Amino acid sequence: MSSARTPIREIVLTPIAFRDPPLLNAVGLHEPWALRTIVEIRIDDGLIGLGETYGDQGHLARLHQAAPALVGLDVFALNDARACVARVLGGAIGDDRHGLTGQINLSGTVDRVFASFEVALLDLQGQLLRRPVSDLLGGAVRDRVPYSAYLFYKWAAHPGEAPDRFGEALDPEGIVEQARSFIAAHGFSAIKLKGGVFPPEQEVAAMRALREAFPKHVLRIDPNAAWTVETSLRVARELDGVIEYLEDPTPGIDGMGQVATRTPIPLATNMCVVAYDHIAPAVERKAIGVLLGDHHYWGGLTRSRQLALLCETFGIGMSMHSNSHLGISLVAMTHLAAATPNLGYACDTHYPWNSADEIVAGGALKFVDGALPVPTSPGLGVTLDRDALARAHERYQRCGIRVRDDTGYLQRFRPEYSGKLPRW
Amino acid sequence: MSSARTPIREIVLTPIAFRDPPLLNAVGLHEPWALRTIVEIRIDDGLIGLGETYGDQGHLARLHQAAPALVGLDVFALNDARACVARVLGGAIGDDRHGLTGQINLSGTVDRVFASFEVALLDLQGQLLRRPVSDLLGGAVRDRVPYSAYLFYKWAAHPGEAPDRFGEALDPEGIVEQARSFIAAHGFSAIKLKGGVFPPEQEVAAMRALREAFPKHVLRIDPNAAWTVETSLRVARELDGVIEYLEDPTPGIDGMGQVATRTPIPLATNMCVVAYDHIAPAVERKAIGVLLGDHHYWGGLTRSRQLALLCETFGIGMSMHSNSHLGISLVAMTHLAAATPNLGYACDTHYPWNSADEIVAGGALKFVDGALPVPTSPGLGVTLDRDALARAHERYQRCGIRVRDDTGYLQRFRPEYSGKLPRW
Repeated sequence: MSSARTPIREIVLTPIAFRDPPLLNAVGLHEPWALRTIVEIRIDDGLIGLGETYGDQGHLARLHQAAPALVGLDVFALNDARACVARVLGGAIGDDRHGLTGQINLSGTVDRVFASFEVALLDLQGQLLRRPVSDLLGGAVRDRVPYSAYLFYKWAAHPGEAPDRFGEALDPEGIVEQARSFIAAHGFSAIKLKGGVFPPEQEVAAMRALREAFPKHVLRIDPNAAWTVETSLRVARELDGVIEYLEDPTPGIDGMGQVATRTPIPLATNMCVVAYDHIAPAVERKAIGVLLGDHHYWGGLTRSRQLALLCETFGIGMSMHSNSHLGISLVAMTHLAAATPNLGYACDTHYPWNSADEIVAGGALKFVDGALPVPTSPGLGVTLDRDALARAHERYQRCGIRVRDDTGYLQRFRPEYSGKLPRW
Repeated sequence: MSSARTPIREIVLTPIAFRDPPLLNAVGLHEPWALRTIVEIRIDDGLIGLGETYGDQGHLARLHQAAPALVGLDVFALNDARACVARVLGGAIGDDRHGLTGQINLSGTVDRVFASFEVALLDLQGQLLRRPVSDLLGGAVRDRVPYSAYLFYKWAAHPGEAPDRFGEALDPEGIVEQARSFIAAHGFSAIKLKGGVFPPEQEVAAMRALREAFPKHVLRIDPNAAWTVETSLRVARELDGVIEYLEDPTPGIDGMGQVATRTPIPLATNMCVVAYDHIAPAVERKAIGVLLGDHHYWGGLTRSRQLALLCETFGIGMSMHSNSHLGISLVAMTHLAAATPNLGYACDTHYPWNSADEIVAGGALKFVDGALPVPTSPGLGVTLDRDALARAHERYQRCGIRVRDDTGYLQRFRPEYSGKLPRW
């Protein structure tokens, strides 16, 4: 009895743009359009595997560089596919930042490119086997994956455009109001505030207002390295007992280590540890208590699942990071979280900010009581709405944005803004 | 379209015994019979998944305790299966030693029991998918897995029995002769000497004799923690340039760390790091340069594959450990090694010492130029010879051995022998 073999026949890469509200963070303001790339991998019998990844032009160019080399590989040959990506990139190191995911190094660049294809290959594997992707990761241990309400300080509108449906949020009251609306719409029981926008006192006040308004909700704040070590320690003292973890208060593994060893609150990161090379120094300096995984830059779902065992081994908790994204990413995140026993925190997601421009069939995926039900159909469990994809690609062509640049965008309206970190 | 579900219907556990030569090690002498347990997991359509694990009575009792709880689980539900094993064992910690695999702790006990079933589940997954098990681990990156000639000091015969076909080896000449015969028969290009039997000077002389007789072969020695830190350092100096790594020269993470930080030769272990709990302290003390994986106690093939990423992340090389075993274990080891890109050393195997009593159909598996070709047929790629299995089970019933006890066996003939480590 011989084994099956299913070669990759074609890879199609479609850059898209979707509306993004004017969300503020430590380095600037979200532009009106966020970019992603949709990956389609085709095999002989007409099945298509889907992936969603960054849309910045440097990353897109690397995807185009790697894709032809993967054609002909078997859909189960994930080890070979990663080696192939590494070979094709030939030591090129990513130069775009994909949002706030820290410095990119060589292995991180390979993992970012490989991950883009790996999810689509797992989607194909699942379809071939009539198994959900979670089954390829050891099987779901939960049938719903909780997500957090991801709050942002924001403007009412992008300058020169009409106000969005989310409203302005520039003070504690606005943040509480935003939380109310997110929780009413999606049922979240964890709340994360993207901080680093206003002086720490105001953001501490916002966290206290959230605690008062939502006494039973789990709370977090993420100032994206906007604070010095001393400021981080002061905020940690003020929020002790209020937040479950403090995310990236200060830049770098050294700084994080100085904070972590002097506060009982676990520090989480998606900035100082964003590639495998960063883990050993972070462990040595006891810099982090929680790692925010993200399959888009940790090398896909299988390597992220492997990363989870590493975290468990070193006593590091696991949560999940997100950038602006649509539904293919959301279901991939959900399969991974479902099959990761030690992922003990509600995952982050930007999805409610972006889902109106969804490109999967059926439109925006729905949270139920703050969680996404884990898809049980074969593969990832979503297919493309071809018309929506075409519209999203047209928007990409028209929008003029090719690299995410929150700092440059904010500087258009506030020329004195520097984006320098830490700020306080 | 709904997904498939394939529940476990029955688990059959068959303890077996097979002939084992009178091999000497740091804690005694191999008895005439080695024990294993053959695991068969059956599903509805008649497919059977195979596993091979320890046969010691404590482990066998834990397998019998866990097996009924797994019936009904889906064959892809590996995460659930491990949680189920942990629940059923309820905190029981293994009390038998399974050879020289160090102290067993709680998580290690769960991983030993879970692994016994996990391999059989992967065998079933592969058969269902018409894919070799290596495909379930990311795909083979090599089509042959090199193994090492695993040399032992040995007696000509077990006391009171006829000499075996391997002959006596009690000095450097005997070891070189044994190497010649193993290399002639199997083509190995790496050689490992099980040491810790004679004073270090004699074993150093054996390594030098091997180097002279086999100038191009890769060499290793494993005294199983028989040496003090000072002796280990002295031997390391004497064998610098002769061996590729020094395996478990001295007991414990502290001792290994003291040796490792004072010699350029990488230290390998299957003694001081044999469970996930041991990794963080070993990393902190820089105690090891090479980890000998072994899916039988690292929680199966999928967790071993995850362990490989952990090792890569911390700059630890990977090799593979073996106990006395037969062909199901050998093919499982081969699938794992084939799908582990950073497994850079020839794997250890006792197989040539034991393969005459093989219980897989077709008899002993054959090394080609020192390597086992990676099976490409679905699942593990082996089936049972039912008659051979029945004979092996009869031998288990007759042999009277229920726990491996190399020390007690040697003491029958040398009452003054203590087995105490370190000895020199």
